[in-house]
Amino acid sequence: MKIVVDTLGSDLGPEELVRGTINAMKNIPIDVVFVGNKKNVEQAVINNGGDPDRIEYIDTSVSIENTEDPVMAIRRKKEASIVLGLHHLNNEGVDGFYSTGSTGALLAGGMFITKRIEYVDRAALVVILPTRRGGTMMLDAGANMDTTPDFLYQFAIMGEAYAKKVLGVSKPKIGLLNVGVEEGKGDKRTKETYDLLKGSSMNFGGNVEARELLNSDFDVIVTDGFSGNIALKSFEGSVKLLFTELKEGLMGSARGKLGGLLLKPILKNIIKKYDYREHGSAPLLGTKKAIFKAHGSSDARAFENGLYIMEKFISNGVIQEIEKNLSEVQHD
Amino acid sequence: MKIVVDTLGSDLGPEELVRGTINAMKNIPIDVVFVGNKKNVEQAVINNGGDPDRIEYIDTSVSIENTEDPVMAIRRKKEASIVLGLHHLNNEGVDGFYSTGSTGALLAGGMFITKRIEYVDRAALVVILPTRRGGTMMLDAGANMDTTPDFLYQFAIMGEAYAKKVLGVSKPKIGLLNVGVEEGKGDKRTKETYDLLKGSSMNFGGNVEARELLNSDFDVIVTDGFSGNIALKSFEGSVKLLFTELKEGLMGSARGKLGGLLLKPILKNIIKKYDYREHGSAPLLGTKKAIFKAHGSSDARAFENGLYIMEKFISNGVIQEIEKNLSEVQHD
Repeated sequence: MKIVVDTLGSDLGPEELVRGTINAMKNIPIDVVFVGNKKNVEQAVINNGGDPDRIEYIDTSVSIENTEDPVMAIRRKKEASIVLGLHHLNNEGVDGFYSTGSTGALLAGGMFITKRIEYVDRAALVVILPTRRGGTMMLDAGANMDTTPDFLYQFAIMGEAYAKKVLGVSKPKIGLLNVGVEEGKGDKRTKETYDLLKGSSMNFGGNVEARELLNSDFDVIVTDGFSGNIALKSFEGSVKLLFTELKEGLMGSARGKLGGLLLKPILKNIIKKYDYREHGSAPLLGTKKAIFKAHGSSDARAFENGLYIMEKFISNGVIQEIEKNLSEVQHD
Repeated sequence: MKIVVDTLGSDLGPEELVRGTINAMKNIPIDVVFVGNKKNVEQAVINNGGDPDRIEYIDTSVSIENTEDPVMAIRRKKEASIVLGLHHLNNEGVDGFYSTGSTGALLAGGMFITKRIEYVDRAALVVILPTRRGGTMMLDAGANMDTTPDFLYQFAIMGEAYAKKVLGVSKPKIGLLNVGVEEGKGDKRTKETYDLLKGSSMNFGGNVEARELLNSDFDVIVTDGFSGNIALKSFEGSVKLLFTELKEGLMGSARGKLGGLLLKPILKNIIKKYDYREHGSAPLLGTKKAIFKAHGSSDARAFENGLYIMEKFISNGVIQEIEKNLSEVQHD
């Protein structure tokens, strides 16, 4: 299995990504093509004891910024790491592309360079939400604005395939993010999507409210990218805020400082459990080959974890499963 | 000033609402008309030492459930507490209506019985988000699905009036809830709303991401009801989950138990600060008279707090300010 790793676009610099990749290579049988500033990356590979026989390089220093128009950038910046990497992904024997770069550019590149699976209208970003029972996947996590009920229905089929093949759930329970649990709640889009999902052969469990996102028994939660982004960032903001408040409270008194000392291991566990970095690698679902996006602030550990999921995604045939299920729906 | 208080629809029963109301009456010059089961309410008034000279009753035991179609219910259930209460609100000398009942029914009743302010297309629900610097108001918090950019623009004008008159901010900073801070981000609706707000005379500060909702310097954040609901419930869910995890962690070991004991006052402060009950009363903006909604699970304290805000809302003339500002925009 061969993965193309984009080393540009990371907030922490290429060294973190190289370290994470090399750590993953010790545990899973992947070869890697690093895209980025070859001199820097090669040095990082040496520093971290990478195996030169399993590593190739594509040299470039051009990246696509979050502020650029993604479609324009993909079309014009022929030397950008995402463009070069995705073109390389089109070659036979190359299985996946992994990047911390611009989500929009990855999505546009996925659509225009890698291309969509037949019957897929839009590729969707997945996020694995850290829940009390382990994890729930939500899609779309922010890639697509102005989605239609048909797109959301396809997201459900794609999510189901991922839950089956990567998470090992035999009959994934599908939910629809909505403003209330009752049938008939929501805006026009969610109401129509509800009807589509209800009429499908999937294990549709109905609407899910945002307050249950981290505490439900749903395997896959479907939403438009706008609402998905809002839910996710609201969660991120809440966690950050509460721990800041807690830290400030603890530092404010001797009693608090002692309490904090005793509490440290418990807080550490919770932070680890609900740390987006642990769950921070998101596949793009709907493209003909595997494309994964990691947070720009991913450290080596987060990046490494993403590679483990990606390896499973490829070897268990998620894309083939999506193709099969969507073509069956089309022929119904 | 006279306020109609709906005692039906509370999860905790009418006694909590009566106690909260009577506590508020000790501090602010309001007379009250209780709508609900007169026998029960009268007993609760006696139990809590209410002043009979400042209290009237409207007797009914009919309520509108959350599961009912709100528009249908408002039209057909002539004896429902919300319907009777809102009709009473139409009388001269009656200034406000306060209820824990169905949000949908309040909204429908506000539209059909109280009626909208001229130039207002949709009434919006406000929520005061507990933020680190005190509070930020967000609207619409879930009343309106399928809102248009024009509606959102009106929400901004209504929110601005509330922030000026109730929160005492001279030039409120207005934000738009969106998936990114840059101009050009979002779906069709938010992009068009951005342009409208940018072209207005308001102090428009641009887009706000959901992760900054609890930690921004915006006074008013505008959003469609669907996204507003998602953001709010995601926050509620996160807070609940983190404290559950913390409690479980603390109870799991002797060290944790001791830490927890030392920590208790700090946690209590944080919970109080971010407790929706402290901030749980939401005005409906856009109706010709003041209508406030409290959470169904509001206790006496939460209900009391809502009455203080409502009194300010009425005496400072929020509705008159909205009328003035909207008519100026219409004549531009």
